[in-house]
Amino acid sequence: MQKTNRTEITTLGEFGLIKHLTETIQLKNSSTRYGVGDDCAVLQYPGDKQILVTNDLLMEGIHFDLTYVPLKHLGYKAAMVNLSDIYAMNGTPRQMVVSLALGKRFCVEDIEELYAGLRMACDAHGVDIVGGDTTPSLTGLAISITCIGEADKEQVTYRNGAKETDLICVSGDLGAAYMGLQLLEREKAVFEQQLRENRRTKRMDSEEELRLAQPDFSGKEYLLERQLKPEARRDIIEALAAAQIRPTSMIDISDGLSSELMHICTQSGVGCRIYEEHLPLDYQTAAMAEELNMNVTTCALNGGEDYELLFTVPIGDHEKISQIKDVKLIGHITKPELGCALITRDGNEFELKAQGWNPLKD
Amino acid sequence: MQKTNRTEITTLGEFGLIKHLTETIQLKNSSTRYGVGDDCAVLQYPGDKQILVTNDLLMEGIHFDLTYVPLKHLGYKAAMVNLSDIYAMNGTPRQMVVSLALGKRFCVEDIEELYAGLRMACDAHGVDIVGGDTTPSLTGLAISITCIGEADKEQVTYRNGAKETDLICVSGDLGAAYMGLQLLEREKAVFEQQLRENRRTKRMDSEEELRLAQPDFSGKEYLLERQLKPEARRDIIEALAAAQIRPTSMIDISDGLSSELMHICTQSGVGCRIYEEHLPLDYQTAAMAEELNMNVTTCALNGGEDYELLFTVPIGDHEKISQIKDVKLIGHITKPELGCALITRDGNEFELKAQGWNPLKD
Repeated sequence: MQKTNRTEITTLGEFGLIKHLTETIQLKNSSTRYGVGDDCAVLQYPGDKQILVTNDLLMEGIHFDLTYVPLKHLGYKAAMVNLSDIYAMNGTPRQMVVSLALGKRFCVEDIEELYAGLRMACDAHGVDIVGGDTTPSLTGLAISITCIGEADKEQVTYRNGAKETDLICVSGDLGAAYMGLQLLEREKAVFEQQLRENRRTKRMDSEEELRLAQPDFSGKEYLLERQLKPEARRDIIEALAAAQIRPTSMIDISDGLSSELMHICTQSGVGCRIYEEHLPLDYQTAAMAEELNMNVTTCALNGGEDYELLFTVPIGDHEKISQIKDVKLIGHITKPELGCALITRDGNEFELKAQGWNPLKD
Repeated sequence: MQKTNRTEITTLGEFGLIKHLTETIQLKNSSTRYGVGDDCAVLQYPGDKQILVTNDLLMEGIHFDLTYVPLKHLGYKAAMVNLSDIYAMNGTPRQMVVSLALGKRFCVEDIEELYAGLRMACDAHGVDIVGGDTTPSLTGLAISITCIGEADKEQVTYRNGAKETDLICVSGDLGAAYMGLQLLEREKAVFEQQLRENRRTKRMDSEEELRLAQPDFSGKEYLLERQLKPEARRDIIEALAAAQIRPTSMIDISDGLSSELMHICTQSGVGCRIYEEHLPLDYQTAAMAEELNMNVTTCALNGGEDYELLFTVPIGDHEKISQIKDVKLIGHITKPELGCALITRDGNEFELKAQGWNPLKD
């Protein structure tokens, strides 16, 4: 985070900083009646709309590592994570409230970067930032985002509506964000090791050190993009609506396919069978898994942060769903007695486990 | 935080912990359609209602110190801070989304305590907890609360509606929460000093140490209560409605009277005069200020966390407002050219400054 310009936050103060960050915001949605600047934001929705509310709290060192995540990307991703939750209910996001807790090492330019990412994501998805709060932090950066959206009552899609014989669908491909994280973590470790070595032997000047800090990621760009710049799948929600498909259940994949599928099955009181051969994988994910000597199926099942949509549709929609670009059928819902099973390429059956990304277990 | 029972959070996992904390929640409001357990909470409000949304992010070491704040009180206060923002818009709070980031030192019983406080506050104010998320933290505890409320459009009260000749009113009394904080900080310092001394000289056994940790706060109970268990002023909102008084502007006092009054004046484009002799003070606040050799007026103007309501009413409401219990007239709104002034007891005039509680400046 070396900067040529560094304006201390104290020069603006808390209220000055919020004003500076939010004063150019133009409100876009008719449901937004009053944005930043009072005790609350004020919204108004038609009485026949259901209102969706989600909040995510992202903590430095747990959800992001600023040694390799640029602040603009972080802002973008923090917004996407929340937008994804609205889409996972089959809704349209409209408003966002952003609270930041900042350690002393951050300057105004840092927060401008973070906000630039947030605003880029919000602009792309037609969302108004209606509240912004900043507060100090004794330690790392904390980002709390509340996202509000709307949906017609009959369109809201819960986790608990999957029915026997429904088809299980997933958008995009799986495991790439996790592979991107492995890649960044590996390069960070290599860099730190070389830096220690260099400081001991004093072999390099600082220019050489800087070059060292910029590893060659060619051929792995997709993995990095999936980790650093995920995209919430509005396109899938729109494609489903256009095809007049109403999913019976839906969730976004933040903790890994296996964990999310088990949420659907548990809450719907059903079982499932998914097929290893149908799991959507990108070539770069497979290549990276091989390079790291990891099982790519395990990565697809348990790697988090894909922000793809996992959903079920009635079997009668088979024809319609197979025509939607970037959606794959990976299995089907069963009676609850049959449990949650993965059928491997060689025909073996394994019970799915929610080993998903659960840092509380670390 | 010594406990006889200590259940590690890892034994429940993230999802297990949320379920454990939220499964007995009974939803009370018709606007709550779906609570904890999916990607979003689902709400539905009549189309003629305006929806109020606020979020606060509370960080350990900045907003609270767990050496003297019991977790149950912390949960209660965290809820009240947010409820107060809804009342400050002249609204009724209905839903709350709670996200917690927990360091490894917290056990399930700790979070039960925190939740007990949250739920006590929500029950008292008829609010549904509709979303709960927990996440790890590498460092301290972080609490993010989003509160959602409603109001009729013509009742919503902003900061920007104060008019020349309006009367300035404040509920309750001022400065006591700040005095409570000073008291707790002082006792903490004394305790730590004595503990260091004792460990050096080994004069006390651990039973004596424990007695030392329980200072005598008699005669100062009100100050502690104001700091540890603030009450959001629903009663004032109800009294104003019953008296058919619609404030022209309103804000809650979280950063100190002076700072909040300047928000109203800046946003309304007006000036103000308030009178030292009319500032509402409790006897204990005055006594404590004297004990600490502080100016009590400064404490009333700049001490934060009172969570009282500051509002303006048309001069024609003078008669009605003076009959409302626990509301004091402290001054009046003026032309903007006159600035924001405090008239002292001896008739001198000072310009108000927003020295308010702004930890970003520390």
